[in-house]
Amino acid sequence: MEITRSSLRLMVLILCGLLLIFTLVQYPYAPSDKAELLDCSTNSPWCTFKNRFQLSTSKILKNPAQHQTRNHATDVPRHPLDPLTVTELNQVRNIILSHPFFTTASSYSLHSVVLEEPSKPLVLRWTQNEPVLPRKASVVAIVDGKSHVFTVDLSINQVTRHQIGSQTGYPMMTVEDMTSATWAPLMDTTFNRTIIERGVDLKDLACLPISLGWYGKREENRRLINVQCYTMKDTVNFYMRPIEGLTVLVDMETKRVVEISDKGRNIPIPNAANTDYRFSKFNSRQQLNLLNPISIEQPNGPSFTVEDGHLVKWANWEFHLKPDPRAGVIVSRARVRDPDTGRMRSVMYKGMTSELFVPYMDPTEAWYFKTYMDAGEYGFGLQAMPLDPLNDCPRNAYYMDGVFAAADGRPYVQSNMVCIFERYAGDIGWRHSESPITGMPIREVRPKVTLVARMAASVANYDYIVDWEFQTDGLIRIKVGLSGILMVKGTPYENVNQISNEEDLYGTLLSENVIGIIHDHYITFYLDMDIDDSDNSFVKVHLEKHETAPGESPRMTYLKATKHVAKTEKDAQIKLKLYDPYEFHVVNPTKKTRVGNPVGYKVVSSGTAASLLDLDDPPQKRGAFTNNQIWVTPYNESEVWAGGLFVYQSRGDDTLQVWSDRDRSIEKKDIVLWYTLGFHHIPCQEDFPIMPTVSSSFDLKPVNFFERNPILRVPPNVENDLPVCKAAASN
Amino acid sequence: MEITRSSLRLMVLILCGLLLIFTLVQYPYAPSDKAELLDCSTNSPWCTFKNRFQLSTSKILKNPAQHQTRNHATDVPRHPLDPLTVTELNQVRNIILSHPFFTTASSYSLHSVVLEEPSKPLVLRWTQNEPVLPRKASVVAIVDGKSHVFTVDLSINQVTRHQIGSQTGYPMMTVEDMTSATWAPLMDTTFNRTIIERGVDLKDLACLPISLGWYGKREENRRLINVQCYTMKDTVNFYMRPIEGLTVLVDMETKRVVEISDKGRNIPIPNAANTDYRFSKFNSRQQLNLLNPISIEQPNGPSFTVEDGHLVKWANWEFHLKPDPRAGVIVSRARVRDPDTGRMRSVMYKGMTSELFVPYMDPTEAWYFKTYMDAGEYGFGLQAMPLDPLNDCPRNAYYMDGVFAAADGRPYVQSNMVCIFERYAGDIGWRHSESPITGMPIREVRPKVTLVARMAASVANYDYIVDWEFQTDGLIRIKVGLSGILMVKGTPYENVNQISNEEDLYGTLLSENVIGIIHDHYITFYLDMDIDDSDNSFVKVHLEKHETAPGESPRMTYLKATKHVAKTEKDAQIKLKLYDPYEFHVVNPTKKTRVGNPVGYKVVSSGTAASLLDLDDPPQKRGAFTNNQIWVTPYNESEVWAGGLFVYQSRGDDTLQVWSDRDRSIEKKDIVLWYTLGFHHIPCQEDFPIMPTVSSSFDLKPVNFFERNPILRVPPNVENDLPVCKAAASN
Repeated sequence: MEITRSSLRLMVLILCGLLLIFTLVQYPYAPSDKAELLDCSTNSPWCTFKNRFQLSTSKILKNPAQHQTRNHATDVPRHPLDPLTVTELNQVRNIILSHPFFTTASSYSLHSVVLEEPSKPLVLRWTQNEPVLPRKASVVAIVDGKSHVFTVDLSINQVTRHQIGSQTGYPMMTVEDMTSATWAPLMDTTFNRTIIERGVDLKDLACLPISLGWYGKREENRRLINVQCYTMKDTVNFYMRPIEGLTVLVDMETKRVVEISDKGRNIPIPNAANTDYRFSKFNSRQQLNLLNPISIEQPNGPSFTVEDGHLVKWANWEFHLKPDPRAGVIVSRARVRDPDTGRMRSVMYKGMTSELFVPYMDPTEAWYFKTYMDAGEYGFGLQAMPLDPLNDCPRNAYYMDGVFAAADGRPYVQSNMVCIFERYAGDIGWRHSESPITGMPIREVRPKVTLVARMAASVANYDYIVDWEFQTDGLIRIKVGLSGILMVKGTPYENVNQISNEEDLYGTLLSENVIGIIHDHYITFYLDMDIDDSDNSFVKVHLEKHETAPGESPRMTYLKATKHVAKTEKDAQIKLKLYDPYEFHVVNPTKKTRVGNPVGYKVVSSGTAASLLDLDDPPQKRGAFTNNQIWVTPYNESEVWAGGLFVYQSRGDDTLQVWSDRDRSIEKKDIVLWYTLGFHHIPCQEDFPIMPTVSSSFDLKPVNFFERNPILRVPPNVENDLPVCKAAASN
Repeated sequence: MEITRSSLRLMVLILCGLLLIFTLVQYPYAPSDKAELLDCSTNSPWCTFKNRFQLSTSKILKNPAQHQTRNHATDVPRHPLDPLTVTELNQVRNIILSHPFFTTASSYSLHSVVLEEPSKPLVLRWTQNEPVLPRKASVVAIVDGKSHVFTVDLSINQVTRHQIGSQTGYPMMTVEDMTSATWAPLMDTTFNRTIIERGVDLKDLACLPISLGWYGKREENRRLINVQCYTMKDTVNFYMRPIEGLTVLVDMETKRVVEISDKGRNIPIPNAANTDYRFSKFNSRQQLNLLNPISIEQPNGPSFTVEDGHLVKWANWEFHLKPDPRAGVIVSRARVRDPDTGRMRSVMYKGMTSELFVPYMDPTEAWYFKTYMDAGEYGFGLQAMPLDPLNDCPRNAYYMDGVFAAADGRPYVQSNMVCIFERYAGDIGWRHSESPITGMPIREVRPKVTLVARMAASVANYDYIVDWEFQTDGLIRIKVGLSGILMVKGTPYENVNQISNEEDLYGTLLSENVIGIIHDHYITFYLDMDIDDSDNSFVKVHLEKHETAPGESPRMTYLKATKHVAKTEKDAQIKLKLYDPYEFHVVNPTKKTRVGNPVGYKVVSSGTAASLLDLDDPPQKRGAFTNNQIWVTPYNESEVWAGGLFVYQSRGDDTLQVWSDRDRSIEKKDIVLWYTLGFHHIPCQEDFPIMPTVSSSFDLKPVNFFERNPILRVPPNVENDLPVCKAAASN
């Protein structure tokens, strides 16, 4: 009976496969339309989910009242850094697809269509009332299997530049690449038989596209992906139900299975029990209501404005903010008002997540290659899903949409991708009470209120929450939160007492048959600091133990600060050391405070982790941008992606390490600061079936930038300013 | 003219001095009454301020509506760990002062009168409906110049134990010690002449008592203090106007000047301009109104209760909280509810700030000794002033008073010393969206709400904000914020360009004639972890690079976690290293999760700093508890103050380092975890004239303590639960 049903399904799937091949030939590289043509989609909820993709990104799942649905059809760029509009994306598509190179091609896909930002001097000279600067697009495409980069000039309707891409890496995957990779195994009868033999109904199958890095010949000269699968039976949290040891190597161009590795037949699929995390699935007895309602309220509305869709003005700050398919969000031209002169002063020309590196620590066949680069491989912005109002961001948040291009160049809207809100967390901006020692009747306290720009990228299982937080005292905090779901491994073990050597698990037994594998997360930020002007220097302020001379002092030792200006890039390859502390300043050496200190900002580390892999281990070569926590490079338009522009299957020949090793001069230059935030993650049972957020951050902090405390003259809270609130919105 | 006025003042002050001597003889050690008898107090606002001390700690400066004024006269202890009540403190005073040892003494002062906590097993067995356990007080006194420790049994009205204190250190100063030390120099004509010669009117004088550590013979066998002075002319921020180089050594017992060091005559007193920070001193044009009102609102009220004044119950947490004159606040019996069993589970028996160490990095005569220990020398709780509602803590905060004993044993109330509030900061407890890869319509997000217990200690210039933050996911974050005012040094320099070698400033030129001296802050926490029970082990989980065997894997390296159970104290003397990472677990080895992991909590470091002074440098010997970031000791009732019980002028023979070096067994024992949070502070101009808060924290985080994510079943926010708010309370 069971066999018969399986055979039937097999036949349907073979038919499916044939249909798919037909479709692929007839409708090359327009996968967003393709799913509807697949008969299998009517059988598999997994396929059906895919069809819902357009829906889920353009429509809203709940709390509809909260969402500002915007029509982007008539958007017009107002600022030279504004992202391409729907109209412009359509124009780029028309220009590029009518270019002879494309009209003669047998296949193509567009992997990135974004604004080519005008040159820095032009942007710096531009003022808000001027017409926007000439608009150009940068297009990364794969045409007949080869990577290309085009510049499209929208003012003259022409492709003005065309470069052949690198041989050693590929562009960021398109969403269509990822989704189609997950269907590809279904065309393979061996695969289907394996799935059925594992006791998984094909309709319950859920597969993930897993970038495979680069380890040698096999990963060269063709665009490949590994696909691994799970069962969705009895849970939406299929991540907890791996079909362990089964890895399908798929050619992303042909969509064909290249190789199947099937080593986990003896490993049971973990149970679905206790894996679902949706609130709607718990009955009222199971629900855990711990708290009364609590909310950040601003009865007179927020204090920020977003002009022309992207220019954020709040308190003493002004910056340009835009969604980006690869970086997630880009903060540009961050400027702060000097309380003494009233003038806006430049702090950072551009800041963004440049790359991520997430190596898993299991060298076995189905795991060794898991060393994700979530920005350059998957698109950190492409994966940034609509935020959930009242939960992802508080009331009064402003939501910004992303307007991106699909693989066929057609624009689509990633709605509510970024939120901006003011945060009051009960914290203190500054304070002083006089103590009982003096007994003076003084108590001056100022509450701390900040502005947060947030996105949350769901790169398959994991959720990354990225906050850019601006403080009125001039500090910028960049915070990364990790939540979502672990990537777990199936195992025959049900209890630690069955395991002779726990180390060999490569992780922690989280539940019966489930191991959470040890892994690291590195998030590398590009920070083009422009302290009052572009030409800056990087100064290492060394705190060193100094010994007093005999008879000089009853003290034997004290710490002394010495300043070292980094001359070249190698002077600025920094590994942090608790017992050899430094401050790291970016200063404008030509601009001094009244008493003669160079104006500057410092980068302040908080909790972080360092990569310990061998420098010549292939993943670490590709992730070489994590070899140091801090780097400084001279500004170079082409050096923005720390793992290289073409990071997919790259060999590490275009990383920050390679650029920095040129050892160029960085003194009194337009310089870019790079900071890597790291996490080691040894999973624990609390991470099952979904992880409480873990976060860390680093700060960019003014250091002798202002003449004095810039928030000296802000008022305290008084009762009369605060709102009067009634119990509930429903009343 | 100028000279005549000065002479007149000198005469008044000599008279003052004589009067003071008369007073000291007639009214020994009751300084809180004494100020009123001093004629000089009518001349000097500084003296007048002292008289205001009682006022400022018992009355409220502003926002009177917010304050819950409580009458503590009828307080009754309900919990065995409740602090001594007003009634009990009076009882202790009666018992101790009628003890023959005191009735025959020629002088005495009480330096600490606190609850002697019942033994741990008794407290653990006690349940809430039982009568409170027998009450005892621990009294530290100086009697005829010698230190003593008494146990007073309140149930039998007797002194039941009497120990002679250590010879190598003295008890914490009383507030009366500190204030009287600042008047003492005025009795010295040489001092007064010096002040006048510096151009400072004696009525403008403000002096600070500065603990002098221990450097050798001079600091032995008598209780000494250094006094340094400032001018208050034209500013309340006298800290920015040092009379540099003038140090007066005062004997705290005789209140007499021992020695005057006067080396700064050539150093001008910095200007008062731009130093005042009080909002009321700015006119409306100067005020910087950046923001609309913003508030954390809870229309149905907070979700926590404080039973019997000290037992805090919130969400899944319960803990006992009490103010302490030395530690600031003490958190006891922190327990969290297991969502599966519904039972309260023990996490921490007791947590508190044990000691601070604040070494300044200037070896010169007037500065080398500044190596403060703010808990054991000044009383971290004694200096914790009333919090400012709406600014120190948000609306809906609950305020707890401290009830302490003065030097004469009389109880007094430190009102609103601790606040407790719920925090919603727009953060995310956990989240997951399905990405475009799967396209499943899932977006589940839970807001993060926490409970904060806060105090702010103003140890003269500096303000320390200490937060104990409890999360529903079981995490406890301990956060320390630094604000307040720098300790600065006068200098002839007005611009950095006048300085040949900037390093020799020992700091940063912050304003004309003002140097901010480099210093460190270390805050050491005592954390008596009891994971499900008292007997625990400390496990170091080492993440090490592991190389694969040839042919084993395309990967060359990966990280492997190995567990090392610390057998003895020396196994648990931990220096953190970024490139040699560990997790540090406190586990209950006899209690396992369903799948066999030992239940535990880990201590998670964030940004910190390490002391780099030589181990045998006298300040570092005294502050030896900062030699490591983490220590573990077996529970010992007498080992709670990391620098020793008698830390004032101590020589470092009773520190955590000394205890730990005994290398006792700590496996499967009742163990205490110690963590030191550190800050290096190179001042910058933004710290002038008052510092924006800098903070850091560390976490105690469940690790396989729960079977799974303990907040899996909490609800998301929905619009209907949130409040409706009107513009302002004044309307």
